[in-house]
Amino acid sequence: MTTHSKSSKRTLLNWGLFIATVVVVFLLGLLASSIIERRAEAAYVNVPKAEIGQFEPRNEVWGQNYPREFQSYYGTADTTFRSKHNGNATIDMLEVDPRLVVLWAGYGFAKDYKQGRGHYYAVTDIHNTLRTGAPKTPDSGPMPSTCMTCKSPDVPRLMNQKGVAAFYTGTFAELGPEVVNPIGCADCHDNETMNLTITRPALVEAFERMERDIKKVSHQEMRSLVCAQCHVEYYFDKKKVDGAQYLTFPWDNGFSAEAMEEYYDNIEFSDWTHSLSKAPMLKAQHPGYETYMTGIHAQRGVSCADCHMPYKSEGGQKFTDHKMQSPLNNISNSCQVCHREEAGTLLANVYERQDKILENRDKLEELLVRAHVEAKKAWDLGATETNMKDILTGIRHAQWRWDYAAASHGASFHSPVEIGRVISTGITIAQETRIKLARLLADLDFNQEVPYPDIATKAKAQEFIGLDMAKLNAEKQEFLTTVVPEWKKQAEEREKTYDLKPEPKN
Amino acid sequence: MTTHSKSSKRTLLNWGLFIATVVVVFLLGLLASSIIERRAEAAYVNVPKAEIGQFEPRNEVWGQNYPREFQSYYGTADTTFRSKHNGNATIDMLEVDPRLVVLWAGYGFAKDYKQGRGHYYAVTDIHNTLRTGAPKTPDSGPMPSTCMTCKSPDVPRLMNQKGVAAFYTGTFAELGPEVVNPIGCADCHDNETMNLTITRPALVEAFERMERDIKKVSHQEMRSLVCAQCHVEYYFDKKKVDGAQYLTFPWDNGFSAEAMEEYYDNIEFSDWTHSLSKAPMLKAQHPGYETYMTGIHAQRGVSCADCHMPYKSEGGQKFTDHKMQSPLNNISNSCQVCHREEAGTLLANVYERQDKILENRDKLEELLVRAHVEAKKAWDLGATETNMKDILTGIRHAQWRWDYAAASHGASFHSPVEIGRVISTGITIAQETRIKLARLLADLDFNQEVPYPDIATKAKAQEFIGLDMAKLNAEKQEFLTTVVPEWKKQAEEREKTYDLKPEPKN
Repeated sequence: MTTHSKSSKRTLLNWGLFIATVVVVFLLGLLASSIIERRAEAAYVNVPKAEIGQFEPRNEVWGQNYPREFQSYYGTADTTFRSKHNGNATIDMLEVDPRLVVLWAGYGFAKDYKQGRGHYYAVTDIHNTLRTGAPKTPDSGPMPSTCMTCKSPDVPRLMNQKGVAAFYTGTFAELGPEVVNPIGCADCHDNETMNLTITRPALVEAFERMERDIKKVSHQEMRSLVCAQCHVEYYFDKKKVDGAQYLTFPWDNGFSAEAMEEYYDNIEFSDWTHSLSKAPMLKAQHPGYETYMTGIHAQRGVSCADCHMPYKSEGGQKFTDHKMQSPLNNISNSCQVCHREEAGTLLANVYERQDKILENRDKLEELLVRAHVEAKKAWDLGATETNMKDILTGIRHAQWRWDYAAASHGASFHSPVEIGRVISTGITIAQETRIKLARLLADLDFNQEVPYPDIATKAKAQEFIGLDMAKLNAEKQEFLTTVVPEWKKQAEEREKTYDLKPEPKN
Repeated sequence: MTTHSKSSKRTLLNWGLFIATVVVVFLLGLLASSIIERRAEAAYVNVPKAEIGQFEPRNEVWGQNYPREFQSYYGTADTTFRSKHNGNATIDMLEVDPRLVVLWAGYGFAKDYKQGRGHYYAVTDIHNTLRTGAPKTPDSGPMPSTCMTCKSPDVPRLMNQKGVAAFYTGTFAELGPEVVNPIGCADCHDNETMNLTITRPALVEAFERMERDIKKVSHQEMRSLVCAQCHVEYYFDKKKVDGAQYLTFPWDNGFSAEAMEEYYDNIEFSDWTHSLSKAPMLKAQHPGYETYMTGIHAQRGVSCADCHMPYKSEGGQKFTDHKMQSPLNNISNSCQVCHREEAGTLLANVYERQDKILENRDKLEELLVRAHVEAKKAWDLGATETNMKDILTGIRHAQWRWDYAAASHGASFHSPVEIGRVISTGITIAQETRIKLARLLADLDFNQEVPYPDIATKAKAQEFIGLDMAKLNAEKQEFLTTVVPEWKKQAEEREKTYDLKPEPKN
């Protein structure tokens, strides 16, 4: 190539680029104009229509000012995604996995454990579950008022009215007529500024004990912390305030399975005594935030809302989609904002992680069932408290680690390496305990395998642990047809009279 | 804002963009010119200087034509990265982790197992290791010729000369004077086209058995498959060709730990019989490719070379860095090409994954040590073959899964979820086996814990399993000072005479 032809080629290239640039600049002008017009439109649309009082619990009232957020929130009533994937809107986990019945023998979860539905159903489902029993009067159990803490924006209103410790004192039934609006706007938003806000004291108190000031966190952190008000591990502290079951997060030593286990061991806390093994058990609640914090998404600064409530655009307005849901039902707006892979590939990646974790989680369940029945056998053959002490601690620790992994739901995706690690430690402990049980049983002249119980179905498993399901179901039905309608009627009357009604501005 | 001022602002914006564009276009012209000139320079530089014969084993000969690739290949002699991180260029894994000695009792690895150094040391280190013993004559053991397969570009030359099965027949010592050039150019490149090529038959044969044609894979796949010639799980098949120890990859059922275990079980293959437990053991070699294939990097199409041999630019030329090494020593050219995070963050992410895996891998090692000594105790107390059958299978399977995870080196980063899964299954099996051992020992009137051996150091562990290290070391020293120099001398003479010498073109 000569120097001459090289330079004329370059001139041609320059002219081509110049003309292309002129076109691009013109289009940029049009774009800028369109953006400015859309901003004006947005400003016009977002004029508040209703006065929203402090502690306004009714999502419909907030919805008058924020119709898009409100309408999308109503999307949490939608259960078609689950139905499509699982054939049933309300998955009965005890049917799916009857081992759970044995693991929770002696505890409410053995009676009924369904996969949670959307926020819209929070109050309905806490009425429906057999775990809350069938209280006939305000002072009857089995559940304390503290159970209501995460169910409704009526809770900040009641805590303000009664005081926090008083809220935690008394029964679930007592609050029946008060807690009626399902999880919604006032749980996470300030009524004046619409800023995200922490309304539940347990999270604030946990931060204080960790010497962190929750008021100083970033907006991005708040997009996870409002979720962490409820999607966490917690217990009811009966020692803090006399008569109260004080909602407390066991985070003082850290978020890990080991750190929380140590916390509970140190205060000798147990949720219940297992009816077969007599082990002092811990029930992991749903350490979703804790486990998410150990995963790569949290490490990269991705918040809960980024995936579960991604931004959405309608009529020129960008807003947060308040249909909290599995990102797998909304891949284009969640995963694909960052990950440039096909939806099918991303879905397969998630399921692969989950499957690899579930394989060993299921194995650990089987080992725990065995440990419980072997421990029962040892008791039956005359084992002493001294014989059983280490064994029961082993069962407690192994099942805690299983439950930490299992109850944190999304964690086998959020943090598969950590969850795999925890399950491994659970398996080691479960089996170490079973070695001790084998030696003890041999000492008690039973040197053979204890048969695995026939727990092929939920019904068989519930019969095996001695539950009278017909009675429990009948009581619940009566509760739902007599007590709950009465609660709703009282709530309606109350909401008519108190001063939190909507007040249209114009 | 009035319509008038809005439109004049837009005009101003357009002019600003126009001027900026003029500047950018001018700079683009300069850039184009620079690229064209550099291409010319590259064409001038890349004129071959030497004729490279087929099966040319000497990296220095290839290096005359490809000085940049060759110089970077010499970088594999560098061990400063390790020294910096670990305080020693040659990490003695048995010192670091004396449990390994017990796990490999009765097998060569119990004598000596050092972390591999770079390709540059391949031949030196196979001479040095105690595993290859101290053969005095060409027909003495302990190792077969097959051991040399992955050590040198002399191997394709010898396989061409002798035939593949003949290469796999005979001793390691026999090939001593023939295998002298360390892993290099001719192992992966075609001498005519410089294309990547598969030189080792085991990979081609494994693909054939999987009904895949290795000639049809993409260049990107080749950037991993040339590595997979050696960085894989393999065994020596003694049944295929009479007298030969035929190098074979056990991939017929798949790459997973379970699939390869099933393969070995079906052919009743074992690498050795454990000297304590008498279990028929499998030694996982280094299933690096298999485990990498289950991880996210492989799933996203990232090849081995992308991270371990990233592109590099020098004097206007882009070339592949042939210093195969840990990407952690080269984060800016490997990880950061895709991951836009600080090097320190990426490093922490890698170490975190590894630590979470290593915790349970180490635990599994301890459980395996216990299983071996408990099995020995059972034999000592008079256990029968029938008593021990399932127990020995359990030990075999559990240790195979541990070794699959451990020997695949990078796998706790390449595929931490899969490796965590495999380790969990190993723990379950190890402990299930120990439960059986506890029952058997109780039957043999020993219903208590078998003491954990004192294996605090490599020396103590080697004494525990009965190795005479002084003798082994003395023999090796003699071998290194008498036999190896003789091999080198013979090789030098041979290389002087055969027709593969460099022939400068001009």
